[in-house]
Amino acid sequence: MDRKLRMGMVGGGRDAFIGAVHRIAAGIDGKIELVCGAFSSSPEKSKASGKDLMLPVDRCYGSYQEMMEKEAALPEGERMDFVAIVTPNHMHYPVASAALAAGFHVVCDKPVTFTLAEVQQLEAEIKQSKKLFCLTHNYTGSSMVKEARELVKSGQLGKIRRVVVEYPQGWLAEDLEKTGQKQASWRVDPKQAGISCCMGDIGTHCANLAEYIVGSPIKELCSDLSTFVKGRKLDDDGNVLIRFKNGAKGVLWASQIAVGKENGLNIRVYGEKGGIEWQQEEPNSLVVRWTDKPMEIRRAGTGFVGAAAAAVTRTPAGHPEGYLEAFANIYNNFADTLIGELTGNRIKVADRDYPTIKDGIRGMAFLDAVVKSSSSESKWIKL
Amino acid sequence: MDRKLRMGMVGGGRDAFIGAVHRIAAGIDGKIELVCGAFSSSPEKSKASGKDLMLPVDRCYGSYQEMMEKEAALPEGERMDFVAIVTPNHMHYPVASAALAAGFHVVCDKPVTFTLAEVQQLEAEIKQSKKLFCLTHNYTGSSMVKEARELVKSGQLGKIRRVVVEYPQGWLAEDLEKTGQKQASWRVDPKQAGISCCMGDIGTHCANLAEYIVGSPIKELCSDLSTFVKGRKLDDDGNVLIRFKNGAKGVLWASQIAVGKENGLNIRVYGEKGGIEWQQEEPNSLVVRWTDKPMEIRRAGTGFVGAAAAAVTRTPAGHPEGYLEAFANIYNNFADTLIGELTGNRIKVADRDYPTIKDGIRGMAFLDAVVKSSSSESKWIKL
Amino acid sequence: MDRKLRMGMVGGGRDAFIGAVHRIAAGIDGKIELVCGAFSSSPEKSKASGKDLMLPVDRCYGSYQEMMEKEAALPEGERMDFVAIVTPNHMHYPVASAALAAGFHVVCDKPVTFTLAEVQQLEAEIKQSKKLFCLTHNYTGSSMVKEARELVKSGQLGKIRRVVVEYPQGWLAEDLEKTGQKQASWRVDPKQAGISCCMGDIGTHCANLAEYIVGSPIKELCSDLSTFVKGRKLDDDGNVLIRFKNGAKGVLWASQIAVGKENGLNIRVYGEKGGIEWQQEEPNSLVVRWTDKPMEIRRAGTGFVGAAAAAVTRTPAGHPEGYLEAFANIYNNFADTLIGELTGNRIKVADRDYPTIKDGIRGMAFLDAVVKSSSSESKWIKL
Amino acid sequence: MDRKLRMGMVGGGRDAFIGAVHRIAAGIDGKIELVCGAFSSSPEKSKASGKDLMLPVDRCYGSYQEMMEKEAALPEGERMDFVAIVTPNHMHYPVASAALAAGFHVVCDKPVTFTLAEVQQLEAEIKQSKKLFCLTHNYTGSSMVKEARELVKSGQLGKIRRVVVEYPQGWLAEDLEKTGQKQASWRVDPKQAGISCCMGDIGTHCANLAEYIVGSPIKELCSDLSTFVKGRKLDDDGNVLIRFKNGAKGVLWASQIAVGKENGLNIRVYGEKGGIEWQQEEPNSLVVRWTDKPMEIRRAGTGFVGAAAAAVTRTPAGHPEGYLEAFANIYNNFADTLIGELTGNRIKVADRDYPTIKDGIRGMAFLDAVVKSSSSESKWIKL
Repeated sequence: MDRKLRMGMVGGGRDAFIGAVHRIAAGIDGKIELVCGAFSSSPEKSKASGKDLMLPVDRCYGSYQEMMEKEAALPEGERMDFVAIVTPNHMHYPVASAALAAGFHVVCDKPVTFTLAEVQQLEAEIKQSKKLFCLTHNYTGSSMVKEARELVKSGQLGKIRRVVVEYPQGWLAEDLEKTGQKQASWRVDPKQAGISCCMGDIGTHCANLAEYIVGSPIKELCSDLSTFVKGRKLDDDGNVLIRFKNGAKGVLWASQIAVGKENGLNIRVYGEKGGIEWQQEEPNSLVVRWTDKPMEIRRAGTGFVGAAAAAVTRTPAGHPEGYLEAFANIYNNFADTLIGELTGNRIKVADRDYPTIKDGIRGMAFLDAVVKSSSSESKWIKL
Repeated sequence: MDRKLRMGMVGGGRDAFIGAVHRIAAGIDGKIELVCGAFSSSPEKSKASGKDLMLPVDRCYGSYQEMMEKEAALPEGERMDFVAIVTPNHMHYPVASAALAAGFHVVCDKPVTFTLAEVQQLEAEIKQSKKLFCLTHNYTGSSMVKEARELVKSGQLGKIRRVVVEYPQGWLAEDLEKTGQKQASWRVDPKQAGISCCMGDIGTHCANLAEYIVGSPIKELCSDLSTFVKGRKLDDDGNVLIRFKNGAKGVLWASQIAVGKENGLNIRVYGEKGGIEWQQEEPNSLVVRWTDKPMEIRRAGTGFVGAAAAAVTRTPAGHPEGYLEAFANIYNNFADTLIGELTGNRIKVADRDYPTIKDGIRGMAFLDAVVKSSSSESKWIKL
Repeated sequence: MDRKLRMGMVGGGRDAFIGAVHRIAAGIDGKIELVCGAFSSSPEKSKASGKDLMLPVDRCYGSYQEMMEKEAALPEGERMDFVAIVTPNHMHYPVASAALAAGFHVVCDKPVTFTLAEVQQLEAEIKQSKKLFCLTHNYTGSSMVKEARELVKSGQLGKIRRVVVEYPQGWLAEDLEKTGQKQASWRVDPKQAGISCCMGDIGTHCANLAEYIVGSPIKELCSDLSTFVKGRKLDDDGNVLIRFKNGAKGVLWASQIAVGKENGLNIRVYGEKGGIEWQQEEPNSLVVRWTDKPMEIRRAGTGFVGAAAAAVTRTPAGHPEGYLEAFANIYNNFADTLIGELTGNRIKVADRDYPTIKDGIRGMAFLDAVVKSSSSESKWIKL
Repeated sequence: MDRKLRMGMVGGGRDAFIGAVHRIAAGIDGKIELVCGAFSSSPEKSKASGKDLMLPVDRCYGSYQEMMEKEAALPEGERMDFVAIVTPNHMHYPVASAALAAGFHVVCDKPVTFTLAEVQQLEAEIKQSKKLFCLTHNYTGSSMVKEARELVKSGQLGKIRRVVVEYPQGWLAEDLEKTGQKQASWRVDPKQAGISCCMGDIGTHCANLAEYIVGSPIKELCSDLSTFVKGRKLDDDGNVLIRFKNGAKGVLWASQIAVGKENGLNIRVYGEKGGIEWQQEEPNSLVVRWTDKPMEIRRAGTGFVGAAAAAVTRTPAGHPEGYLEAFANIYNNFADTLIGELTGNRIKVADRDYPTIKDGIRGMAFLDAVVKSSSSESKWIKL
């Protein structure tokens, strides 16, 4: 393609966190440019945020509805190609739905919607619209996660038996929401976050990462969610027994009250012949263990990783890529797919490597089950 | 005391593993000497093993019964003071019972007995005999485990909320028992190991370690045990949701099929104000996390650890102590207590720092519950 | 400023490595856009590379001379603001000189020039031109390097005594240059690389990083450079004793033949009261050791780092930033300074936080001394 | 042999550190028992220390001379077999000389003697006496050091090119000797320690470890020693360029003022095809890097280490052995050799795996050269 893809953004104004991440991630590989946005539910804030970003005033919109309408009215060579949705959870569905209806492709932050019902409705709308939908389960963009997945897929680890996936954070160990901190406030609010805080915000990443690597869906689970900080209405911690369709079993836990932990997503997967271990905070290493030789540390950017990892690595070994680069890989794979659509060189669905509405449905089903299980007397809840 | 304590051993012959560990652990601090043994159920093997150990022939016994009888008949200045039991599980109770009956103190490997009923019986016999009973849950002997416990106890971490305790091993990922390897063979045999392989052998260490550090018993649990290697009758892997009496919650898992993992016992405990993380394979470090300052690495032997850790450290910082030294701490604390008994300087029960029959009862109750839960439809099983 | 800064690039065509790095680093923070380039000494390659980057054909130049001339002729609102020089070393000076002469600010990769004489000449030209000059010693852009520097500067570590700075790589352990690999070929060629391969390419990073953190120049040194791979004319490894003006002493070593090492730049600095340790491959952690309390791990993005580190951190703790982000920090600080120049809000020289021609001069002086020392019989060579 | 070896000790009284280490190390494997000692230059202290150790009063001697005389007079079946010398450095030679003259084998702490001249004299006396002499360069007893040596020896790493060996400690960063701390006091005193503090105490370990693994002697060196803490007469820190006879080059540094460092001896060795990295504080892992496959972590006790490492490992993988066990390996290998001597099953000199007087001579030659070099204007000093 002889031009960059044009991105509009909904959410991500001045005091947001994830909006800036999406902008950097989208921009890193030089294929996408931000052309417009509705950055806040307050029109003034939206315009001020757009100005910070050096966007022309007339493309800083007061609402997402205005954005859809006005962008759709622009000539083809000018209007945005897709919308990036980076609002709190409760606004994901309305914006995505409006974008699809207005003819735009969509990139959406996770969890995909507010409820399981919404995501099912959204799936139908996507199908009808024939537009692309990308869900930013960003951690699956990491090169060594792809290496892990490829190792499992190749059969080198043998049949998978056991999985441990954890997501410890400590930032909500105290009632940060009472200080007015925005990130905390909406996540602990059922009206904005939905039925879960901890499991919705980070537990879904665990489930998504595990299914991505294991290559089999979680079939049933048994959970014990907790609210440790007084006054909260939603969980800030949870432990889950999980069973996969392929017979693997394991534990999944996430916490926002593990004092001092930062963003410790990690996964360990053991098969009959080998095992892998990966930590998000040191994402360029993959520990690989074998029954018949010493443990290896596979490193991003070396000649000793497979094609999947190599394809998403920008720098030579020892030049660490991190959170933003993994996030950018999601955008980059989406961009390649979208370029394929726009230029008539369609990439086969099976070869598209970014999370889609299917991951969204899985995530909401997980969330539904994990919340239901916690208050159930029955041991196993099916997804 | 002006002499060493005299130890007799039951089990621990030529091809055993844990017997040699007990002998080294008992000997390191110069307070205990091995004087006799019934090292094998085969009298020939027992005598040959004793000869390897440079014991006099007449104190290498053909059976534990013979040992109890003959040692009891020796003059006070000569006969053994206590028996160390290092047989497979099914022989713990009979030997301990015989030793107590013959008037000897007892050190016993874990799990304490074959069944919960046996341990209850054993407790009664101990009470009646007025002898000391030490259970070698060796990992609680590690200096940084004591530091962790002291940090919790002091209240510095605040009320404890969440616990993660893991024990991954990989040595039974394949059917090693079919090669005749002795360590594998008895552990997978219900007749020698009891109702559980993985949970009995290593899951009990998890439970013991967690209760030791948290300072509160596990109240109820929900488990999912597995047998991954075909042909086995007992579990070789298991995942457990746990709830403590003090309100803390968490996960406990153990595995003997986590390919390539060696002896990865580790624990993480998070309270309202701080958290700790400890790994058995690097036992001299304790990660301490706080809400209000950077994470610390506390190190054994430095001036920055508390009295409990300092009391069981032999070497300056950076001179790593390991598995044997932690094990020796159990023996050393037991020896100090026994010396107190023998010399009339009795150490108060509250100040004795080694695992006792109470830990044994807790362990068997855990084992019972964890096995029962796994096949139960009910979610929570009380201990 | 209401527009992005406009960057032109010299070098960085299709099979280059560092050009892409500069483009990503320049773009990440949304303040700089690439508008033109002379990407190769071959005009065809240059144009093809520019097309890949979606640049307009008329701004993909056949030579850097053409670029300077034509860009200078464009109207002010259109022409580039600065040139990024990413060629092999021997072309740094000619291009920088031409850019300054044509009125453009300059960002230049390191080592700054081919010879010490050249850099002295360049310094004069910069002074005369009144343009900004930024040298991309990228590792000093890392947030925890800034934390280290701030800790030293604050006096918290006490008077600095000992420094160890290392840069192990293994990629030239075999004669990769014989395979035609471009990165290897020019670095081992005295005509393109200058008087040194290993010390020029990576030893200079060591010296720069050490002086940046210690806050005092290397005063004298004693070196032992080696060429281990047969057929090479320049060093591929070297060891250096160093002495700083402030009395600190230490060792500096770099190697391109440390098999299996990736990009292991690291530094350790110990003062009277504390010490720091930092590794480029895990750049978000800084080990801090004290005489009077346990060692700390300070982590990027937490509330426990100083203002300097916080100022260059984009993501919350545990969302790792890496090589590209550190590189981007150099560009970002340069961009802020240039925006200040262009908008009349000049940033004071003392507050500009990016490497300049002074670092370039220090680097060439280091290089000169380290090469001279290696073949000298005298022990100490002054810089 | 049907009895334990009998050890006498000189030094190692109540407030000593290394004496207790020797006693534990000697005892762990059940082949050696302590039978007598002259534990202090003060006869009262000596006797009190012996009582602590439950030795009979008549074998707690008031001086080493008395011990040699009285032990020599005991019948063969009773008198000690060898003397362990654990005094400050200046007493090594006199005691060793007296022991050999009295017909006893010797185990001696390092550095072997006070001066190079003394060690040469000692060598002659050993030759004449035909007694065994073991120098406790304990770190070479570590299993993974033996694995490293075996890997080099086998040629798998190719010709060795570069070596880095470091020994950072921080315990003398302040003037601890002024507090009367005994360990500090004698080490900084030229009358007890000799010509060097830091290099003598720990630098010699570096040199010994490097030569042990590399399998080639250091040929020449260039050093820069420092005394950072005011008032000291000897070095407390030093940096050294080293060149091996086989062409390898490298750096060696040691420090007692690296604040917060504990006992950080470590070594990295890179050859043409592979490299190894080992750290004393985590001694059970050996990093192995290759040109043609991912890096490995070889672990003590696994099936993936060679015969040399396996031979000195007591516990299964993941049951960490540490400083005491490595020290014990020196004693154990010495004991096997002595048992061979006493039973007529002499072990070939080439197969004896413990440091001898040859290591002592190398150490003193290193020490002499490193001190001489530091004040020399010449660049290279030959050993």
